[in-house]
Amino acid sequence: MRIIIVGASGTMGKFLTNVLKKENHDIIRANRSSGDVQVDITSPVSIENMFKKVGLFDALISTAGPTFIGPWNKLSDQTFRTGVEGKMMGQINLVLIGQHYIKPEGSFTLITGALTHQPQQNFANASAANGAIEGFVRAAAIEIENGIRINAVSPTVIENSPQYFPYFPGEIPTTMKQLESGFRKSLFGTVTGQIINP
Amino acid sequence: MRIIIVGASGTMGKFLTNVLKKENHDIIRANRSSGDVQVDITSPVSIENMFKKVGLFDALISTAGPTFIGPWNKLSDQTFRTGVEGKMMGQINLVLIGQHYIKPEGSFTLITGALTHQPQQNFANASAANGAIEGFVRAAAIEIENGIRINAVSPTVIENSPQYFPYFPGEIPTTMKQLESGFRKSLFGTVTGQIINP
Repeated sequence: MRIIIVGASGTMGKFLTNVLKKENHDIIRANRSSGDVQVDITSPVSIENMFKKVGLFDALISTAGPTFIGPWNKLSDQTFRTGVEGKMMGQINLVLIGQHYIKPEGSFTLITGALTHQPQQNFANASAANGAIEGFVRAAAIEIENGIRINAVSPTVIENSPQYFPYFPGEIPTTMKQLESGFRKSLFGTVTGQIINP
Repeated sequence: MRIIIVGASGTMGKFLTNVLKKENHDIIRANRSSGDVQVDITSPVSIENMFKKVGLFDALISTAGPTFIGPWNKLSDQTFRTGVEGKMMGQINLVLIGQHYIKPEGSFTLITGALTHQPQQNFANASAANGAIEGFVRAAAIEIENGIRINAVSPTVIENSPQYFPYFPGEIPTTMKQLESGFRKSLFGTVTGQIINP
């Protein structure tokens, strides 16, 4: 399967790249400034250029979720844009533009997270961006054409990012194996419009 | 109670204005181009100006939810901005800015809708904006200060908007009385961080 991984240099992206490469999938690593192809997901032009370079593909995985992390009193229209342009519109535009380049019966798998329903201090921007992605995924699934599927994976704080553990008191981290399973359900299964809790 | 109603000239806003005026609340009708005070919710500057003019208040109700309604193939980064700047960031900025003008123990009540979880064709933009509002409301409730509460009311298609019935096959409309009850729970109750299904 020819799979684009957006955010391939991040903690999740790296892990998924390694796992899927071992199974002889053709992995195209898309990052802001490294990898096989470069993309700035906050720019629709940059996204379109990426798809033009890559050509036909079977699946796109996104693990790219920039959001503003910080105390409530630093939230403003301006700081909120980090998540609006990044994790939210960045991922939505990957689908709106990518649908014209993906093969029929292909799949998009976006990243959301437990913060949608289980807020934590400092993460209101992520809660909003996640909520938008989840609403979009459910809606897109009933309208997108050519048998294309779309899902989102919703981990909580992940095992390989211990620097975030203090922000999530009492939270049992999502293991990398669970995260991988979530992506597998979307990539190789037949579900669509689902928020997958791995 | 001194209550700002944003979107007071709309179907929901008009109804709520009439109901609450009968109970001798001091209602400030905020619309784009009519009412007691004018506001363009897509502009943080316009929002700040509104709050400066109005001064201290006890509660803000928003029924202002511009989104792009149309077929999937018309969705693009550009059309998606209708809901991002309107129903989503417009309402989020009402809170981020309004929190500095509202009385302690005051309340914000935003509008979301069933499309978050029950998508319909032509409404993907609203599903995303709603999801963002709901995630934001839950997160804001744990961080906002001075005892301020925040909730969102989530109707489905409303009784007084029959022009939308064809878009919601089989949907039993939310009655105006139910909608009113939803807003009352937030305005006069003690709940916070809730998505109220009236």
